[in-house]
Amino acid sequence: MINYNPKDWVTFIFHVHKADTIRTLWPLMISVAVFSGIIAYLELNYLKLAETTYVKNIGMMHNLLGFVISMLLVFRTNTSYDRWWEGRRFLGALTNVSRNFAIKIKSLKLSEAHNEFFDYAIAKYAFALKEHLREKQYFGKNSLLIEVDGGKHIPNQVAASISSRVFELQADGEISQEQLIILNADVQQFTDICGGCERIKRTPIPYSYSAFIKKFIFIYVITLPFGWVFSLGYFVVPIVPFILYVLASLELIAEEIENPFGEDANDLPVDEICNNIEKHVGEILK
Amino acid sequence: MINYNPKDWVTFIFHVHKADTIRTLWPLMISVAVFSGIIAYLELNYLKLAETTYVKNIGMMHNLLGFVISMLLVFRTNTSYDRWWEGRRFLGALTNVSRNFAIKIKSLKLSEAHNEFFDYAIAKYAFALKEHLREKQYFGKNSLLIEVDGGKHIPNQVAASISSRVFELQADGEISQEQLIILNADVQQFTDICGGCERIKRTPIPYSYSAFIKKFIFIYVITLPFGWVFSLGYFVVPIVPFILYVLASLELIAEEIENPFGEDANDLPVDEICNNIEKHVGEILK
Amino acid sequence: MINYNPKDWVTFIFHVHKADTIRTLWPLMISVAVFSGIIAYLELNYLKLAETTYVKNIGMMHNLLGFVISMLLVFRTNTSYDRWWEGRRFLGALTNVSRNFAIKIKSLKLSEAHNEFFDYAIAKYAFALKEHLREKQYFGKNSLLIEVDGGKHIPNQVAASISSRVFELQADGEISQEQLIILNADVQQFTDICGGCERIKRTPIPYSYSAFIKKFIFIYVITLPFGWVFSLGYFVVPIVPFILYVLASLELIAEEIENPFGEDANDLPVDEICNNIEKHVGEILK
Amino acid sequence: MINYNPKDWVTFIFHVHKADTIRTLWPLMISVAVFSGIIAYLELNYLKLAETTYVKNIGMMHNLLGFVISMLLVFRTNTSYDRWWEGRRFLGALTNVSRNFAIKIKSLKLSEAHNEFFDYAIAKYAFALKEHLREKQYFGKNSLLIEVDGGKHIPNQVAASISSRVFELQADGEISQEQLIILNADVQQFTDICGGCERIKRTPIPYSYSAFIKKFIFIYVITLPFGWVFSLGYFVVPIVPFILYVLASLELIAEEIENPFGEDANDLPVDEICNNIEKHVGEILK
Amino acid sequence: MINYNPKDWVTFIFHVHKADTIRTLWPLMISVAVFSGIIAYLELNYLKLAETTYVKNIGMMHNLLGFVISMLLVFRTNTSYDRWWEGRRFLGALTNVSRNFAIKIKSLKLSEAHNEFFDYAIAKYAFALKEHLREKQYFGKNSLLIEVDGGKHIPNQVAASISSRVFELQADGEISQEQLIILNADVQQFTDICGGCERIKRTPIPYSYSAFIKKFIFIYVITLPFGWVFSLGYFVVPIVPFILYVLASLELIAEEIENPFGEDANDLPVDEICNNIEKHVGEILK
Repeated sequence: MINYNPKDWVTFIFHVHKADTIRTLWPLMISVAVFSGIIAYLELNYLKLAETTYVKNIGMMHNLLGFVISMLLVFRTNTSYDRWWEGRRFLGALTNVSRNFAIKIKSLKLSEAHNEFFDYAIAKYAFALKEHLREKQYFGKNSLLIEVDGGKHIPNQVAASISSRVFELQADGEISQEQLIILNADVQQFTDICGGCERIKRTPIPYSYSAFIKKFIFIYVITLPFGWVFSLGYFVVPIVPFILYVLASLELIAEEIENPFGEDANDLPVDEICNNIEKHVGEILK
Repeated sequence: MINYNPKDWVTFIFHVHKADTIRTLWPLMISVAVFSGIIAYLELNYLKLAETTYVKNIGMMHNLLGFVISMLLVFRTNTSYDRWWEGRRFLGALTNVSRNFAIKIKSLKLSEAHNEFFDYAIAKYAFALKEHLREKQYFGKNSLLIEVDGGKHIPNQVAASISSRVFELQADGEISQEQLIILNADVQQFTDICGGCERIKRTPIPYSYSAFIKKFIFIYVITLPFGWVFSLGYFVVPIVPFILYVLASLELIAEEIENPFGEDANDLPVDEICNNIEKHVGEILK
Repeated sequence: MINYNPKDWVTFIFHVHKADTIRTLWPLMISVAVFSGIIAYLELNYLKLAETTYVKNIGMMHNLLGFVISMLLVFRTNTSYDRWWEGRRFLGALTNVSRNFAIKIKSLKLSEAHNEFFDYAIAKYAFALKEHLREKQYFGKNSLLIEVDGGKHIPNQVAASISSRVFELQADGEISQEQLIILNADVQQFTDICGGCERIKRTPIPYSYSAFIKKFIFIYVITLPFGWVFSLGYFVVPIVPFILYVLASLELIAEEIENPFGEDANDLPVDEICNNIEKHVGEILK
Repeated sequence: MINYNPKDWVTFIFHVHKADTIRTLWPLMISVAVFSGIIAYLELNYLKLAETTYVKNIGMMHNLLGFVISMLLVFRTNTSYDRWWEGRRFLGALTNVSRNFAIKIKSLKLSEAHNEFFDYAIAKYAFALKEHLREKQYFGKNSLLIEVDGGKHIPNQVAASISSRVFELQADGEISQEQLIILNADVQQFTDICGGCERIKRTPIPYSYSAFIKKFIFIYVITLPFGWVFSLGYFVVPIVPFILYVLASLELIAEEIENPFGEDANDLPVDEICNNIEKHVGEILK
Repeated sequence: MINYNPKDWVTFIFHVHKADTIRTLWPLMISVAVFSGIIAYLELNYLKLAETTYVKNIGMMHNLLGFVISMLLVFRTNTSYDRWWEGRRFLGALTNVSRNFAIKIKSLKLSEAHNEFFDYAIAKYAFALKEHLREKQYFGKNSLLIEVDGGKHIPNQVAASISSRVFELQADGEISQEQLIILNADVQQFTDICGGCERIKRTPIPYSYSAFIKKFIFIYVITLPFGWVFSLGYFVVPIVPFILYVLASLELIAEEIENPFGEDANDLPVDEICNNIEKHVGEILK
């Protein structure tokens, strides 16, 4: 994630950030500019179409469909943003449950070895989940405390290991049945959070919408110069690519933030959140 | 569900996927194209209506209603997408509760026979629910462990069987009263998830909206060429069907994703989710 | 509720269903058509207003307010649909809690008499709630098991009767204190669902919105022919009623689905849900 | 709250209800009508501005900003309605928790004195909350059962009194520890509901939005006649005030329903809800 | 937060509040006014571009993109408002949990020293959270009761201290295991609320949207005078800055309320809420 000062307009407007959609779109924009120029040349200079030609009014279609395309892009933006924010809520919930679980473990005044185990295990869960969401494997700093098998689902193994330890504490009489209820409520949240993040990661917007929006933008922009040439002349060369930039940028940003757990410029600060969990749990339990 | 790379625009734009709405709409689009051509011939060549005829301005109605139709389609899109996503959340919750329940069973260190039963039962619930939502019956791989009666609600029978086993464990003293509270919280989620999926499956958008939107699109598109012929001439032949394509596609996609548990191209990956549940529960309990 | 096949467009478009808004609106539409015809006659043939008259441009107001009226209708549609869907969620929750509660009762292996009581009571609650929401009274098939007083709130009496029985089971030592906690969580949901349904039923959209939208549609449509006559001539006679049909239909459908527990064509399938609860609870407990 | 029949259009359209925004807006509308008349006189008769003057095209700005103002008003409408409905949900939750708590108290078969105390206390909480939200104080019908100090937060004192009694019941051995858990879950909801209602009441929409929307409507409407006079002549005199009526009504209704606990015509039926709580709790506990 | 009377329109319209966006925007508005004047001079008086020039029609682009920019701003407004309101809900939840926890502590009839500790600790948590969200440190009025280390996360230390005391009460036999469950449910909410507030504070809207919206507004407004000069002449000098004011204000207000825990004019009344918590908890526990 990029840390930025939202009030510094000048930088925003004139700086082309590495995440700027223009970096991805400029080849397409240049192609569209050239295409618009050719159409303008053909219609104005080569064919010399009269002012009364019906071609002139093709823009009526674009006006009518302008609503639909705007609303589709807002639908696309809203759903992507909702996933991004839901992903953020899951990571926030991971922070909360890590802290709460650590505070309770501390309050129970268990032996030092148990505290050390949970201090290690809670942070390990966060890092294992992070790498799992990035399709990597995390084996942790201390494989003696929790041994994981790379062939299986790693966060599940860490969660099972935490759960086992909690149930053992009760079986050994170190905590009461009621305290087991209290701790278990936290433990199962780890797996719920993992499942929620996997859901966001694995379920992009339905294929039909994704395909339909891209096809629609393409046809809309490609047909735009035909009619507009009569009103705008060669000004279609900068204007049509700008309209492409606006419409396609919204689709591109939506695509990028839809899966927020990666390492793109707009993704969530997953690394920072994991480090904070490790730090704060350490503060509580050490 | 189709797995796709959302960043590959070229494929999206030029490939006509089997789920593409154009495959359903092309007969209708051709009819509308022919109809528009006839209207154009009648008005321009046969009747030779003057430029001053009032027919020319019928497009005013289409402009005014353009907002309404766009907003209705966005409403339709939003509600269908919300059901699709709610369905996805239920399947995610099924994954979570299956894992959490398995982790707890494992942590309780019950006898091998019990672990085997729950390993079988949790996966069986997922498959039974999947087939139930597709109006089929699922009797499972091992009918000895959980016997179900095809004439009754199968997921309920599996859930009742899991619940009975959990209460028996407590009655037999293998788990405590407090552990019963912990396990019961998971068990009842299975039935809640089933009820939620049934709700989405059985309750399409109210009939009046579905009928109204279809009627409105039909009348809107059919009346479009009358006025537009004067501005667009024979260009109405490709343009009017394109507008139909845009409007009807949104309704068609909405219809398809509204019930997300089937085997359509845009439906949720129910099979994959069930297989994953079986695999991950197996990893935990074996 | 109407069961329909959302993919059958032909029926939707050409069939005038008994719930179709046109059945309610046609007298109003004919009045508006006559009114538009009179305005057209007066302006075009009687007063013979010149093309340069200011009356011609009254349509500017309609264009400007077109956004506002569309957005208001979408707001109206969204809020009504949300109530309808929230009502559906409550009925789904009633199904879930009925099944879960029955599964637990079965798992507890109580005496046959208790099972019979709960089998009767759970279904009775569903039917009592249904009739309560339709402002009727339900006394049930077997008044010996649960006696209710028609002068008081009937669902509350059934819920109190279920709750009493559960607490008695604990007092008699047939279930443990912890099992009381488990069962109580279900029992109180019955009353929560009843309260939620009553809330939807008794609280329509604020009066001011309802009145404002109706006034706005009326003035908007009534003033439409004055300006449009100059562009559309006698075509205002079919067009203005069509615009009324579109705008008023949205308001009419919203009104109908706002209270979804009745017996209108678009209302929720309350009867079917109650019958299913009776059937499935019977399957579990018998 | 006004009870009304949403299907009676005639009344809605022709009746000017006491909550109608026109009652508040007519002085402003008349001022705007006079102002528009003066502008029309100046531009058409006094200055006799030519048809080619640039003033004529000021309406372009209004068209461009028409989207923005519509969307802002819908944003305003949505947020106000959400608060109103959230307030309704809190009052519904108060009904639910009152009934559930009463049903449990009844099921516990406590002494008559306890039942009487809770019967009194639950209703007292509802009335105390109602008066608290209207910035009045409620001391109740029977100050002997629960004595409150007018200088302090009254609903908190009633809640503390209920909570104390419940904990005393457990300390005296009249209810078990597990029953304390069950009852406590209800008791703390009273305070949660109170906090939720206070939040809605005390937090209007951010000042900047409220001020910006009002300024924007004012400038928008005031500048409207300058350009429109050339197209509409003296018709601006009725039309501009009508546009003001539409835009300002939405803001006015939003303001009124934003705080829904008062005694305005559109406010929630708080009195009726409190009376129902008293009645239904009485039915259960007596 | 500014306390204001939402019904006093005159003040809203004519008073330029210190939080008014015009205070931030006027230098930019003046620059745009000068820029528009120069363009007007160049096109009208210096270059004397003919009425038939294509430059005249550049406004077509602005009309087409008018939808998109309006919808983007509404998206921006909605997401910022949602964070602001979610922040408010967290502060409301802090009020609720503080009161509920205090009421339970009182009901438990512990020794005076314990009551004093919790009275101090609950208020201290609120103040510590407030200062933490403003990146300051809070050590409290009485460091003897809860000692905190400025180098570590202060609210976590206060929460850990509360949790420890609650678990000690149970270990010392002053409260039962079941009462521990009841109290623990409140204690862990403190940390959940803290995590929620940190999430809102630390996660602004994705950089790409923030940058895209600002770039889009800038290009949109800067290109506006080129085409509009032909219709509006020197009227572009006031009109273009006004359009900038409308568009940029929405972005500016959204930026300000996005992080609602500061001391800006539109921020939430955090100080007042903390003081109320201290006062009401004191009323209950003293």
